[in-house]
Amino acid sequence: MYRTHTCGELRLADVNKEVTLAGWVQTVRKFGSITFVDLRDRYGITQLLFNENLNAQLDENPLGREFVLQAKGKVNERSSKNANIPTGEIEILVSEFSVLNKAVTPPFTIQDDTDGGDDLRMKYRFLDLRRNTVKKNLELRYSVNRSARNYLHENNFMDIETPFLIKSTPEGARDFVVPSRMNAGQFYALPQSPQTFKQLLMVSGYDRYYQIVKCFRDEDLRADRQPEFTQIDCEMSFVQQEDILNMFEGLIKRIFKDVKGIDYTETVERMSWEDAMWQYGNDKPDIRFGMKLCNLKFPAHTFPTKESISSLIDGANFQVFDGAETVIAIAVPGCSEYTRKQTDELTEWVKRPQIGMKGLVFIKCNADGTYKSSADKFYSEEKLKAIAEAADAKAGDLILILAGAEERTRKATSDLRMYMGDKLGLRKADDFKLLWVLDFPLFEYAEEENRWVARHHPFTSPKPDHIEVMINNNPVIENAAEYLKHPYANIKANAYDMVLNGNEIGGGSIRIFQRELQEKMFEALGMDATEQQHKFGFLLGAFEYGAPPHGGLAFGFDRLCAILGGSESIRDFIAFPKNNSGRDVMLDAPSTIDDKQLVELSIKLDVK
Amino acid sequence: MYRTHTCGELRLADVNKEVTLAGWVQTVRKFGSITFVDLRDRYGITQLLFNENLNAQLDENPLGREFVLQAKGKVNERSSKNANIPTGEIEILVSEFSVLNKAVTPPFTIQDDTDGGDDLRMKYRFLDLRRNTVKKNLELRYSVNRSARNYLHENNFMDIETPFLIKSTPEGARDFVVPSRMNAGQFYALPQSPQTFKQLLMVSGYDRYYQIVKCFRDEDLRADRQPEFTQIDCEMSFVQQEDILNMFEGLIKRIFKDVKGIDYTETVERMSWEDAMWQYGNDKPDIRFGMKLCNLKFPAHTFPTKESISSLIDGANFQVFDGAETVIAIAVPGCSEYTRKQTDELTEWVKRPQIGMKGLVFIKCNADGTYKSSADKFYSEEKLKAIAEAADAKAGDLILILAGAEERTRKATSDLRMYMGDKLGLRKADDFKLLWVLDFPLFEYAEEENRWVARHHPFTSPKPDHIEVMINNNPVIENAAEYLKHPYANIKANAYDMVLNGNEIGGGSIRIFQRELQEKMFEALGMDATEQQHKFGFLLGAFEYGAPPHGGLAFGFDRLCAILGGSESIRDFIAFPKNNSGRDVMLDAPSTIDDKQLVELSIKLDVK
Repeated sequence: MYRTHTCGELRLADVNKEVTLAGWVQTVRKFGSITFVDLRDRYGITQLLFNENLNAQLDENPLGREFVLQAKGKVNERSSKNANIPTGEIEILVSEFSVLNKAVTPPFTIQDDTDGGDDLRMKYRFLDLRRNTVKKNLELRYSVNRSARNYLHENNFMDIETPFLIKSTPEGARDFVVPSRMNAGQFYALPQSPQTFKQLLMVSGYDRYYQIVKCFRDEDLRADRQPEFTQIDCEMSFVQQEDILNMFEGLIKRIFKDVKGIDYTETVERMSWEDAMWQYGNDKPDIRFGMKLCNLKFPAHTFPTKESISSLIDGANFQVFDGAETVIAIAVPGCSEYTRKQTDELTEWVKRPQIGMKGLVFIKCNADGTYKSSADKFYSEEKLKAIAEAADAKAGDLILILAGAEERTRKATSDLRMYMGDKLGLRKADDFKLLWVLDFPLFEYAEEENRWVARHHPFTSPKPDHIEVMINNNPVIENAAEYLKHPYANIKANAYDMVLNGNEIGGGSIRIFQRELQEKMFEALGMDATEQQHKFGFLLGAFEYGAPPHGGLAFGFDRLCAILGGSESIRDFIAFPKNNSGRDVMLDAPSTIDDKQLVELSIKLDVK
Repeated sequence: MYRTHTCGELRLADVNKEVTLAGWVQTVRKFGSITFVDLRDRYGITQLLFNENLNAQLDENPLGREFVLQAKGKVNERSSKNANIPTGEIEILVSEFSVLNKAVTPPFTIQDDTDGGDDLRMKYRFLDLRRNTVKKNLELRYSVNRSARNYLHENNFMDIETPFLIKSTPEGARDFVVPSRMNAGQFYALPQSPQTFKQLLMVSGYDRYYQIVKCFRDEDLRADRQPEFTQIDCEMSFVQQEDILNMFEGLIKRIFKDVKGIDYTETVERMSWEDAMWQYGNDKPDIRFGMKLCNLKFPAHTFPTKESISSLIDGANFQVFDGAETVIAIAVPGCSEYTRKQTDELTEWVKRPQIGMKGLVFIKCNADGTYKSSADKFYSEEKLKAIAEAADAKAGDLILILAGAEERTRKATSDLRMYMGDKLGLRKADDFKLLWVLDFPLFEYAEEENRWVARHHPFTSPKPDHIEVMINNNPVIENAAEYLKHPYANIKANAYDMVLNGNEIGGGSIRIFQRELQEKMFEALGMDATEQQHKFGFLLGAFEYGAPPHGGLAFGFDRLCAILGGSESIRDFIAFPKNNSGRDVMLDAPSTIDDKQLVELSIKLDVK
C-alpha cells in the first residue's frame, strides 16, 4: 500500500504516530520557509506541513493543484485548529514525500462551488466526480442500494439476473436493438424492464425476486430522462395489492432510516387516482401542502362520482367561465395583498406557452372579510364569498381561477399550484411525504389510432370486479367522440404508484396470470392472435403450466436517489450520465464504427 | 396473502395450528377415499391430506401435476413420518381448498432426474427453473453475490454503476453495437468490461470500486461461453500487487465460508506463469494433484531460465524423440499394471484430433523395480530408470511420454494429465484449491500481423523493472522468425490470475497510470497517435490530471458459481442462458424487427 492511513482518519489520539498518506493536492500555501499542503482523498482532507529542510526538494518538485502525492511523517497537534473538518486538530509533519503523478491545471476548480459550466464538467466528468458534492451524491446512491438490498434480503427476496439481450416487442416506448452477427438479419433488444422475465420467475416458483438493474428506452430525451436508467425491480407471488403496499412502504421507510436517519413512522397516505386528479389535477400530487383544486365546473362523464357545484358560477353571464369546459380554483394562503404587479406576473406566468392558458381570474379574500375580484363585474360579494368557501379559502388568501378545456386547465392549475408552493416555500427539500396513488384506469384512449392502450402495461390486471366487464365487452370503439362512454373507459387497474414529494418514485401492479385474460388484454390493445403469439407466445405458454397469482413493482432508482439527495436532477446522481442528445461527451459516444463491423453484422448505413 | 406459511416451514411444534398454504401440486396419491397431495413451493414440500368429505369437491376439481393450489386446514402429526424432508413429521388436514390456476401436463417431469433433454428444457426454461437442482444453483449464485457484496462493503468498496451504452473500441474480442436513432449513422457499443470506467473512477478518487455487472462479447461461442456474462469487477487505488492478492484472497475465502461453510485457512499458493507452463503445461493448473510435467527436451529460448536434461534421451537413435521439438513425460501413479488394451486406449485418446499427437510412449515402473517400455528397443533399463527418476516416478507408476512440436505437445500433455486426473478420481468436486498465477508475459506475438498484442489488455503495466525495456526499445519486429529474441518477448506483466481447481476464476493487473507509458503501450500494439486519440483520448486525457497508482481484477461470476456448485457448465447457473448460437430459444430471440424500426435507426439489412 502507498499509505498507512486515509486522509480522513487521523485524530488527536494519533499524535506522534509515523504515518504515510497518499492523495491529491487540494491547496498549497507557502508562509516563508514553511509550506502547508491540504491533501485530499475520498475520505477527507489532512494538512501536511513541509518544514524548511524540505525546501530544496520542493523547489525541485514543485507541487501543483491535483498532483498525486505520497507523504510520510509524524502526526502533530496543530497550533491553530480547524473545527470544520474531522482531521482539523492534527497535521502531518512531513519527513519524506514523493510525487506519484503530476497534473496539468484542471479546466475548472475542484470545489463545491465550481467555476465549470455543465458542458465542461460533463466532458471532464472524471474531474467533476472529484468534487465533494458529486461524491456525496454517489455515496448516497450506494447507501440507498445497500439499504434496499439488505431489506429485501431480510424479507426473503432473491436477486436473480435477467438477460440484457432479449427480444424486441415494442409496446409504448422504442427499443434499443442490437444486430446479431451470428443470426444475420436478426436483432436482440435491450430490455425496457425485466417485466416478462420476472413474471416467468414467478411461474417458476421464485416467489420473491428483486434486481437493481439497468433498463433502456430509446425515447426523445426530455429534460431529465436518460436512455439507460436503473430500477429496483421486484416481484412477489401469492400476494394481493395490500401485501405489496405494506412490503414496499417498509422498503422506503427502511431507506429513509438507513440513508437519511429519518424515522418515517406515519402511515403512508393512500388516494385513488380519481381523487388525485380531482383534488390536485395530477396523478402524483405533492401532499406536503394543501391548496387543493376546487372544481367549479367540469364535464361530469370524466369523474362520474363527483357532484357538480357549477351553480356557484352559472348564470352570471361571465363568458370566460360560461364558455369553458372546466373552471378550477385554488386558494393560495396569505397572498390576498398581492399587488397588481404581482397578479399581473401570475397572469403572464399562466399565459406562457408551457402552461397555455388565456388568462387568470383572481379573488382576494381580504383580511377584513371583504372580497375583491378581477371578475367583480359579474359576481356579487355574496357570490365571491360562496366561491371562496367552496375553495376552502380563508381571510387573507388569494384565490386563483383558471378556465378552459378540461385536460389543459387541470394540468395548468396543478402546475400553478406547484409554482405557488415553491414560491411560498411550502415544498421543503428535507420534508418527505409519501403517498400511494391507487385505482388507475386500466386503459387510456389513443386518439390517433382510435384504440385502447395500456396505461401501465399490458400485464396489469383489472380490479377483480372489473374482469367481467373486460371479458364480456368488445374493445372496439365504434364512436370515437364518445369513447368515454365505452365500458372499458371505467375499468380500473390493480395498479399503484408510490409518490414522494410530487414525484413518482415507483409503480407496479397485480398482474394478469390467466392465459385467457392476458389474451383478452392483448386483443383489447389491438393485437391479433398471430402477433400475440409472435411477441408474447412464451408468456402465454408459461401461463398454461401453473402460473401463481403475483404482482410487483419497480422503483426508479435514479430519481429516488435524486429526491433523497434534495435534487430534481437525476443526472447529478449518475456517475457517467448522457446529455439530452443521448451522447456521452466524455467518451464521444455514440460514434461511427468500422465498415468491417457493419459487414460482419449484415447491415448497411442508410442515413437520409 | 394467499398463504399464512410456506411449504417448507411447518414442524411438529405447529400441530393444531390453522394454516393456509399455496403452491404447486407435485404429486397426487389416492388411497381409497383419502387423497394425499404433495404441495411444493420455493421453500419445500408439505403433505396435504384430503379426507372423504372433500371427495365430491375433488371430483369436480380434479388436481393435476403443477396445478396451483391454495389449501386451508389444520396441522396434523403424521402417522408415517418422512425423515427425508424437514416437514416430514407433519401434514395438513385440509378443510377447504381452491385451485388458483390449472396446468397442462409439463413436457418433462419437474424432478432432479428429469426426462427432459437439453433443448426441451431450454425452450421451457420457466419449468426447468422449478426443478430443485436448478433452484439450488440460483440460490448458490445469490449467496455468492450476497457474500461478495458484504465483504467488499466491509472493506470500504463502493458499488458504482458504469454505463452500458458506450463507445466501440474493439481490441481483441468483437463489440456488440447498438445503432443510435438520435445520432444517425453512429453506434454505441455494449461494454466488454467496465475497464476504462473503473480506471476513470480511480482518477476521480473513488479508491475502492466494485460492481457485479453484465458484460458482453460478440464471439463465436465455444462450448461454455455466453454472449452476456457477469463479472465481479473491482479496482483499488494506492496499491501494489501484494495488496490486491491479499484483498481478493480474502474475498474468495469469505465466499467459501459463507456459501460452502468451508474454512479455507491455508495460504493460497503462488506460481509464476513460467513455472505453471513448465510444470503443468498450462497457465491455470489444477494443483489438487501432482503428475507434474517432466520436460525431457524443449527449445531453451522459450524458458530461458530452465536447464535442459535432454541428455537422458539423446543419442539413442529413437527418431520419435530425436525428431521432436519437445518431449514431455508424466508419471501416472499406480498404473504400471495397465494392460495392452488400456495403453492402446490411451494412445488412441492422444491421437484424437482434439489432442492431435502422433502416438504415446510409455514406461511401466514395475513394482519389482524393473522397467518395461514401448521404446525398449532404444533405451536400456538403466536409461529408463534415469528417465523415471527425472519424472519423479515411483515403483508402480506408469510414465506417459509425448513428443512433437512444443506448444501442441505441452498442451497435449496437460490435457492428458487432466484426463488421467479425472480417471483416477484425483479431481474431487468438494476439494477446493486456490492458486495465484503471476508474472505473465506482457505481450503475445500475433503471427498473422507480425506484431505484439496485449496478453491481458492494453492497460496492464509491465513489472516495474521492465518499464525501461519497454520504453527504450522499438516494438517493431524486424525478423518474424526470431520474435522470441525481441526484448519485448521477455517483458513480464504486473498481472495475476486466480485459479481454482484448474479454472481461471479471476484475473487482473496493476494498471499503467502514466500517459507516456500508456501511449508507448498503444504504440507497441500498432496503434498510431490518431487512433489512440480517437479510441482512448478520454483515458489519456484523464491520466494528465493526477492519476493515482491503481490496479484491480475481475472475477468471472458465472464460472465461479459453477465451480462452487460442483459443475463445469456455467449455463446451469444462469437463469435464462443462451444456446451455442447465441439464441434464447424460449423467447425466440434474436428475431427480425419492423421496417419502421430500421428506418428510424438509419440502417438497412445487407444479408448475403
